[in-house]
Amino acid sequence: MLRLFFSKIYSLLNALLAAIGLLAVAALTTPDLTERASLILEIVLFGVWAAYLLQLFATMVLHRATGVRDRSAVVADVLAVIVPAAAFLFVGSRDWSLFCAVWLLQPLRGSMFFRLMARVLTNEARNLVGVTTIFGIVLFAAALAAYLTERDVQPDKFGSIPLAMWWAVVTLSTTGYGDEIPQSLAGRTLAGLVMMSGIGIFALWAGILATAFYEEVRRQDFVRNWQQVAAVPLFQKLGSAALIEIVRALRPRVVPAGTVICRKGEAGDQMYFIVEGRVSVATSSPVELGSGSFFGEMALITGEPRSATVSAITEVSLLSLFSVDFQMLSSSSPEIAEIIRKTALERRGAIPHG
Amino acid sequence: MLRLFFSKIYSLLNALLAAIGLLAVAALTTPDLTERASLILEIVLFGVWAAYLLQLFATMVLHRATGVRDRSAVVADVLAVIVPAAAFLFVGSRDWSLFCAVWLLQPLRGSMFFRLMARVLTNEARNLVGVTTIFGIVLFAAALAAYLTERDVQPDKFGSIPLAMWWAVVTLSTTGYGDEIPQSLAGRTLAGLVMMSGIGIFALWAGILATAFYEEVRRQDFVRNWQQVAAVPLFQKLGSAALIEIVRALRPRVVPAGTVICRKGEAGDQMYFIVEGRVSVATSSPVELGSGSFFGEMALITGEPRSATVSAITEVSLLSLFSVDFQMLSSSSPEIAEIIRKTALERRGAIPHG
Amino acid sequence: MLRLFFSKIYSLLNALLAAIGLLAVAALTTPDLTERASLILEIVLFGVWAAYLLQLFATMVLHRATGVRDRSAVVADVLAVIVPAAAFLFVGSRDWSLFCAVWLLQPLRGSMFFRLMARVLTNEARNLVGVTTIFGIVLFAAALAAYLTERDVQPDKFGSIPLAMWWAVVTLSTTGYGDEIPQSLAGRTLAGLVMMSGIGIFALWAGILATAFYEEVRRQDFVRNWQQVAAVPLFQKLGSAALIEIVRALRPRVVPAGTVICRKGEAGDQMYFIVEGRVSVATSSPVELGSGSFFGEMALITGEPRSATVSAITEVSLLSLFSVDFQMLSSSSPEIAEIIRKTALERRGAIPHG
Amino acid sequence: MLRLFFSKIYSLLNALLAAIGLLAVAALTTPDLTERASLILEIVLFGVWAAYLLQLFATMVLHRATGVRDRSAVVADVLAVIVPAAAFLFVGSRDWSLFCAVWLLQPLRGSMFFRLMARVLTNEARNLVGVTTIFGIVLFAAALAAYLTERDVQPDKFGSIPLAMWWAVVTLSTTGYGDEIPQSLAGRTLAGLVMMSGIGIFALWAGILATAFYEEVRRQDFVRNWQQVAAVPLFQKLGSAALIEIVRALRPRVVPAGTVICRKGEAGDQMYFIVEGRVSVATSSPVELGSGSFFGEMALITGEPRSATVSAITEVSLLSLFSVDFQMLSSSSPEIAEIIRKTALERRGAIPHG
Repeated sequence: MLRLFFSKIYSLLNALLAAIGLLAVAALTTPDLTERASLILEIVLFGVWAAYLLQLFATMVLHRATGVRDRSAVVADVLAVIVPAAAFLFVGSRDWSLFCAVWLLQPLRGSMFFRLMARVLTNEARNLVGVTTIFGIVLFAAALAAYLTERDVQPDKFGSIPLAMWWAVVTLSTTGYGDEIPQSLAGRTLAGLVMMSGIGIFALWAGILATAFYEEVRRQDFVRNWQQVAAVPLFQKLGSAALIEIVRALRPRVVPAGTVICRKGEAGDQMYFIVEGRVSVATSSPVELGSGSFFGEMALITGEPRSATVSAITEVSLLSLFSVDFQMLSSSSPEIAEIIRKTALERRGAIPHG
Repeated sequence: MLRLFFSKIYSLLNALLAAIGLLAVAALTTPDLTERASLILEIVLFGVWAAYLLQLFATMVLHRATGVRDRSAVVADVLAVIVPAAAFLFVGSRDWSLFCAVWLLQPLRGSMFFRLMARVLTNEARNLVGVTTIFGIVLFAAALAAYLTERDVQPDKFGSIPLAMWWAVVTLSTTGYGDEIPQSLAGRTLAGLVMMSGIGIFALWAGILATAFYEEVRRQDFVRNWQQVAAVPLFQKLGSAALIEIVRALRPRVVPAGTVICRKGEAGDQMYFIVEGRVSVATSSPVELGSGSFFGEMALITGEPRSATVSAITEVSLLSLFSVDFQMLSSSSPEIAEIIRKTALERRGAIPHG
Repeated sequence: MLRLFFSKIYSLLNALLAAIGLLAVAALTTPDLTERASLILEIVLFGVWAAYLLQLFATMVLHRATGVRDRSAVVADVLAVIVPAAAFLFVGSRDWSLFCAVWLLQPLRGSMFFRLMARVLTNEARNLVGVTTIFGIVLFAAALAAYLTERDVQPDKFGSIPLAMWWAVVTLSTTGYGDEIPQSLAGRTLAGLVMMSGIGIFALWAGILATAFYEEVRRQDFVRNWQQVAAVPLFQKLGSAALIEIVRALRPRVVPAGTVICRKGEAGDQMYFIVEGRVSVATSSPVELGSGSFFGEMALITGEPRSATVSAITEVSLLSLFSVDFQMLSSSSPEIAEIIRKTALERRGAIPHG
Repeated sequence: MLRLFFSKIYSLLNALLAAIGLLAVAALTTPDLTERASLILEIVLFGVWAAYLLQLFATMVLHRATGVRDRSAVVADVLAVIVPAAAFLFVGSRDWSLFCAVWLLQPLRGSMFFRLMARVLTNEARNLVGVTTIFGIVLFAAALAAYLTERDVQPDKFGSIPLAMWWAVVTLSTTGYGDEIPQSLAGRTLAGLVMMSGIGIFALWAGILATAFYEEVRRQDFVRNWQQVAAVPLFQKLGSAALIEIVRALRPRVVPAGTVICRKGEAGDQMYFIVEGRVSVATSSPVELGSGSFFGEMALITGEPRSATVSAITEVSLLSLFSVDFQMLSSSSPEIAEIIRKTALERRGAIPHG
């Protein structure tokens, strides 16, 4: 847990560093910069570069220590140091700073998200290539048709297929700069058809990416939840079918120490299972709950507002079960719902919370 | 039911009030306003403000009376009153009226929909941040490339990375204002690629939002329907698997008293279960049906037009079962279909409706 | 079947008629029309009007004869006749012809598709209203922010909130006319954010419409297929779970008499079940197959090219089973797959086709 | 396998040839071309044409040899040869080269992807026609309304319905060229509504295409995987329900000889089943594995990095099982997971890999 927390802080800092560096790169390209301003910006660039040099050493030491080799991180780090240095030495004028754009690779370093994206693109390569081919065919056909209909009307804008292709790509993507516009009736009818085809093609593109992406995300969420659900004793009695249902229903959440998880008197639409960490239930005689316990179930069963405030003592890893899912769980796994209900009643007699 | 109805009317009135206030704010910014017109508009603003003051009192009284604390409503109400008042007192000129824009928060007050949206955004935060990072990387890379290819051709439009970034964002979102257009072949090829990347990125964005939103909506619908289905005696005999099927198939609908639910002679593609309220079946000897009854089943079984007009006596909460779902229900829960068929036959002998 | 065919022809003719009428309406508005041309167009309008008058009589006679009342058709027909007539009598100048635009309602007449659309919109009303509210809030906020950042730079374009709102709606929908463009850095950053919000909002809109639409379509397809599958004796032995699988897998298709359904020597990836009609298998001793038979199964089992040409003798209503689905069917309903395989072997001994 | 590989190379070369030919066609239309340049381009065109002539002969010989008739390929090949030849002979000036655009059909030749697209369009024809009708109705209505609101303000741009329709189509598709922009308040409000309708309509279009496309892709993937899974002995013991699960979980992949499939010391998130081909496990005593074997399971069970490098000896057809799916498989088919675990333990004792 703690490692996760630090790794988050680290990637945030890393992203900030890259952002500062890239902003300085961008600022350095503005014309009419004073000597002073450009000196400051170059010092900023050097500072960021030095930080990346440090990071490169750290990565290499860490790799030797743990034996894990994360090649993408090493590549990104080496490039982040070597490319700007080489550009500074060998590229004349101020253009060397543009090579610092290699820092754009930093956010991709060790990110789960980009690994996911890469897998989505690999999985769907065949379909994406197919749609791109259609795009190319429609693009050429549109340019040819526009050239034929408009070459006599506007020879300066549609006088050749390459010129007409610029119009076609701007129209097919519904960008519509407005620098080249068909004037003839045939050209305008064509334009309408091209816009409609464009939407169709981009719909396919979007559909492939979005669906494939979402499927991959759901698969990863399933694995992560699975590992957490396995840590809650209550669920270990379940058969595999019911377990899969539960894994789909629960939503993991990590809260730092001190967070108020639920507040007395508020309406409650979820209950919580503790995977790791401890919470404190603030009643007349405060109670502590640890890994494997659950709380907040009263609000789901009776619909009353929360009867106690619960706050995290340590960093706590929770699984939320929303009331909707509790209903579904009740019908598919009556035993678990029964255990939760029984515990709720016992607690009501003893300590009021939930 | 009645409470639901009043709450709908109330939020409609509230939305109308906010709309009037905001229109007045907008109108007040038009130049060359006559003294008279601006006075009238300021009076409108004051009227809306007074209404919000009243509402704030009402909310606080209600909270004390019921003990339910809806903090988002309280915050919206307090801001709606205090911000314009403070602006009126401390901001010079007519700009104080702009602060009335805080009334934009009113429609979010106590809305189920915005709570749902907030949950969707929380759930998908990680993926949205990931796609936004990709967006940032592509944006910077596109601006850098455009700067390199176009800085000599159009130094006034692509002369620095910040300038080129404006072009990149306009193109990446396929907005295409047309104020900055690459002229070189390399720049135009780049533009085509940027447009395609833009569509890809926004497809991911759209896919994440749309899918996550729809999943959340379906979950909420399920819970609402579940509670209503549980109120119909016929369904209480069902096993949990069949019950889940039914909950998915039925569609809830509330009609005010006096509504004609189905009309004699029309084609019918749905039957109705009454959750709450009473309806009147207009045959030679009119019949009344109450909670737990069903009607309109004849049209589904025989395919004939409706044999009687049915209208609501009180406000009625209904569950509709479409003929498609009746077919599926018939195969998965033959017992229920059998009960419905038997009742239909009995009724046919006795009273003609359906 | 025949009725279906005529109804298709009829709606095609109706759409054509409306298209002709509307084209004439559009043409009549072009300036500098010769006397002669406008006379011809008005005669066309009168012709279309007369056709609608005829149709109105036909509809009324039909309604009296069959007793079915399709109110949407009657309303569309009455309006199609009365509105242009009234406009002709009471509206001065040539503007009366614009009222013929009421013919736009004709394609909606008795269309299954528009009934479906109406149901989708009704079902999703609540969510669509919610997203539209968000749209309104973002629109106003964007206009206010643009007014604040740009009013001093471009007072003629962003000098009031209503003016800025025009920019906001053009940008939020990523249309980007380019007539109003923010110039300040703050304004441009704002524009980037507005474009991104726009995509998000339209993604929600699109997601709601697309998903709800597709769900409704699938429900309707299921019902239509269900009725056809029930007519094939082979499937009547199946349990309800297997039946639902089959209904999902089969794809209905109607071919006119004389069509070649499969051709000898071609690769085959589907087999066919005959719901209604007769086909001829062109082998050395031609064979006729009727309702309830199936053919083309050989290609699925052996992977060889079609061994005979099969053509429709009458209009034939078919259900196609693709090889993919045959594989799935084989594993979920081995009995049916067994019957198909056995028949295939017997036929191979006797008559070569498939 | 080898045939698949050659067919991929072939279609790549074919696409390249078409691309070269079409680029030459495009280049030939640029004005002010030198004599020399246009001669070179015409020679390129002739070369591509000659290659297609060769291909036509090859196709015809192949068809005679194998007896398979792929009519779409024959049609594309015949057109690719005859159309440019005929144009060269009978069309005056340089315009004959435009007819070479018929080569655009080449990438569609024998492509699985375009067959898939054609099927999607056929399946969804009815819905696509429906949405297109709505598009037409909204387009006409928008043009009529814009004509009414703007004809007096900008008679040169909105002076007739056909003129206003150009504005309507540009706005409805959110292209927004910016050549025609409503000025009146009514016109601008209308424009906002048109943009919103446009997004709605295109959302339906996109939703239909994307969903239908994805469904079809999944069906085809299922069939392809099915055939490969059937070749792995381990899976032949499974019941049909479990088999379907496995088929959905596994992902096929073909790697050329010599590829390193997994590398010692890297983190591993998938295991592999060999459908066809042989791999070498590089341990102290190298081991060869053939069809029906699996490897890489250790990383899934223990979470340790890969213990050996595995590379392909021949071209290898693999099925990947990701750790997520291994988890799901473990719960739904414990027997298979048990076999995999047992093998892993035995191997650990003997040869270290995974």
